Amino acid sequence: MATLKDVAKLAGLTTSTVSRVINNRGYISENTRKKVDDAMKDLNYHPNEAARSLRMKSTNTIGLIVPHVSHPYFAEMISNLEARAYEKGYKILLCNSQCIHEREEEYIRMCINHKVAGIILCSGSVALDVFDGVDVPVITIERFLDNRTASIECDNKQGGALAAEKLIECGCKHLLHVGNIGTLSMPADMRTEGFREVCERKKIPFVEIYTEDTQYYRMEYDEMLENVLQKYPETDGMFVNSDVIAAQTLQTCRKFHISVPDQLKIIGFDDTNIAQLTTPQLTTIHQPVKEMAEIAINLLNDSVAGKLVAKRTVLPVNLIERETT
Amino acid sequence: MATLKDVAKLAGLTTSTVSRVINNRGYISENTRKKVDDAMKDLNYHPNEAARSLRMKSTNTIGLIVPHVSHPYFAEMISNLEARAYEKGYKILLCNSQCIHEREEEYIRMCINHKVAGIILCSGSVALDVFDGVDVPVITIERFLDNRTASIECDNKQGGALAAEKLIECGCKHLLHVGNIGTLSMPADMRTEGFREVCERKKIPFVEIYTEDTQYYRMEYDEMLENVLQKYPETDGMFVNSDVIAAQTLQTCRKFHISVPDQLKIIGFDDTNIAQLTTPQLTTIHQPVKEMAEIAINLLNDSVAGKLVAKRTVLPVNLIERETT
Repeated sequence: MATLKDVAKLAGLTTSTVSRVINNRGYISENTRKKVDDAMKDLNYHPNEAARSLRMKSTNTIGLIVPHVSHPYFAEMISNLEARAYEKGYKILLCNSQCIHEREEEYIRMCINHKVAGIILCSGSVALDVFDGVDVPVITIERFLDNRTASIECDNKQGGALAAEKLIECGCKHLLHVGNIGTLSMPADMRTEGFREVCERKKIPFVEIYTEDTQYYRMEYDEMLENVLQKYPETDGMFVNSDVIAAQTLQTCRKFHISVPDQLKIIGFDDTNIAQLTTPQLTTIHQPVKEMAEIAINLLNDSVAGKLVAKRTVLPVNLIERETT
Repeated sequence: MATLKDVAKLAGLTTSTVSRVINNRGYISENTRKKVDDAMKDLNYHPNEAARSLRMKSTNTIGLIVPHVSHPYFAEMISNLEARAYEKGYKILLCNSQCIHEREEEYIRMCINHKVAGIILCSGSVALDVFDGVDVPVITIERFLDNRTASIECDNKQGGALAAEKLIECGCKHLLHVGNIGTLSMPADMRTEGFREVCERKKIPFVEIYTEDTQYYRMEYDEMLENVLQKYPETDGMFVNSDVIAAQTLQTCRKFHISVPDQLKIIGFDDTNIAQLTTPQLTTIHQPVKEMAEIAINLLNDSVAGKLVAKRTVLPVNLIERETT
């Protein structure tokens, strides 16, 4: 079996340079990296990650805990996080908590056992004691967590305010807001705050509906939407907390022969790819998912390197006007 | 620091039972597992996975290599694979190759270095020599790979045939098929075979369009679809290779004032969640993604345990009729 020395000899480099390439330490030119890669390939040399991670303090793996993989928002977030992680030499251990509290805790413990370099948490509101003794960076995206390394959010309040302003500007008089999961406290709750503030200032009445985590996990809002539109038939403007809900609202409107945007105007949230695939296409609040993912990986990487990192990062959102307003 | 012995003492079990729970070996009752979990939690005991995987032949991690994370089909596949893996005690190392050949190879090598228990490959057509010296199971989903452990496919040919039969039954005389990526050989190519056979037998002419991997990766087919519908204005029935393409075809039809299904009938493939969010809702070929994921994890698990596993598994598909036919 080939050794590190054999690789160094074939690549025409010192063993310490080869070791630096394999461990991704310090600056390494593309040329050097290629030489080492080629030599490793020729010799069928596989550095043993398990042995390496024992010697090193941690692996180059990031534990990514999400509540949902197939929801378009998380699918895009995971995709962007994986791409940025790859660029920085990290691997992603994917954990889908399915909004189950016990599973979140179990995954966090599993990540620690695997000696991950850090954890990115996009799921739930984990009890603080789960993190007792955890000494790796924990980055949260769109979730609250006291005393962790860093949190990244979009400006949810601004998003809610933009939606209210737009609907009122369009002449809507009876607004309805489908908000967050009633039992969880999340940064996304601030969308409701922003929406409410504008409505109160402009003296436009609005109804607020909470959702349930089973609706969220199954992405099934049809029944709730049908009940709501029957209960509040005067509604002429809706702001809903995701494009998935907005797309299902369009289906419900079609069933009830409500013309969008003539009789009812709709604004979603996220700006995922489905926003451009509905008829009419969705007006929505754009979350800068790509930038949020990039910042999350950078913060984690800086924190691993012992640098001081921003505790809270809030990115702006903007309204993308399409056809539902 | 707590030891395995401390955990056993607190749980009132033998160290070998605790070891079996931690290593997920043999039958363990829910009650025993809970006792060990509670004791580990109370003592803040973290079995060191890196040390454990050095002693054991491999880790309990599965390397999952996909070409695309945010594509609805892969998002659903990943979600189902993760859920089944969790049930069997495996973790998922997520690798997004982005259809880049070099990256696929790099990820495969990375998986081997990490001593994964097995690899599930949903990406590309990797050169065989990459797997030289790989002695873990490699399961492919909807991809060809000679001499690997097992492959799982849906009956793509049946899917193509069902689509052709439906369109012809609806009275379509000028069919168009938007097929697979021209430069890659994949099981999904058989959709075209099935479609062609039926058309030829029933003597219905059809045009065949190939797609490009950049269109696939960006999920942007608009320009191609506009060109195609302008070049073949007589088209009255389309079978396209994914719901994403079908949803974008609906947008193009709207732009060109082509009424669906009156003037043009459309059938997609996959039956992902967007199929029910378009207007009109998509008629499509349902892939049994849930069952495919379950079989993939079972085959991998059986293969790890040294059992003989089916080399090729083909699952049936069915046509879900909604509103585009």
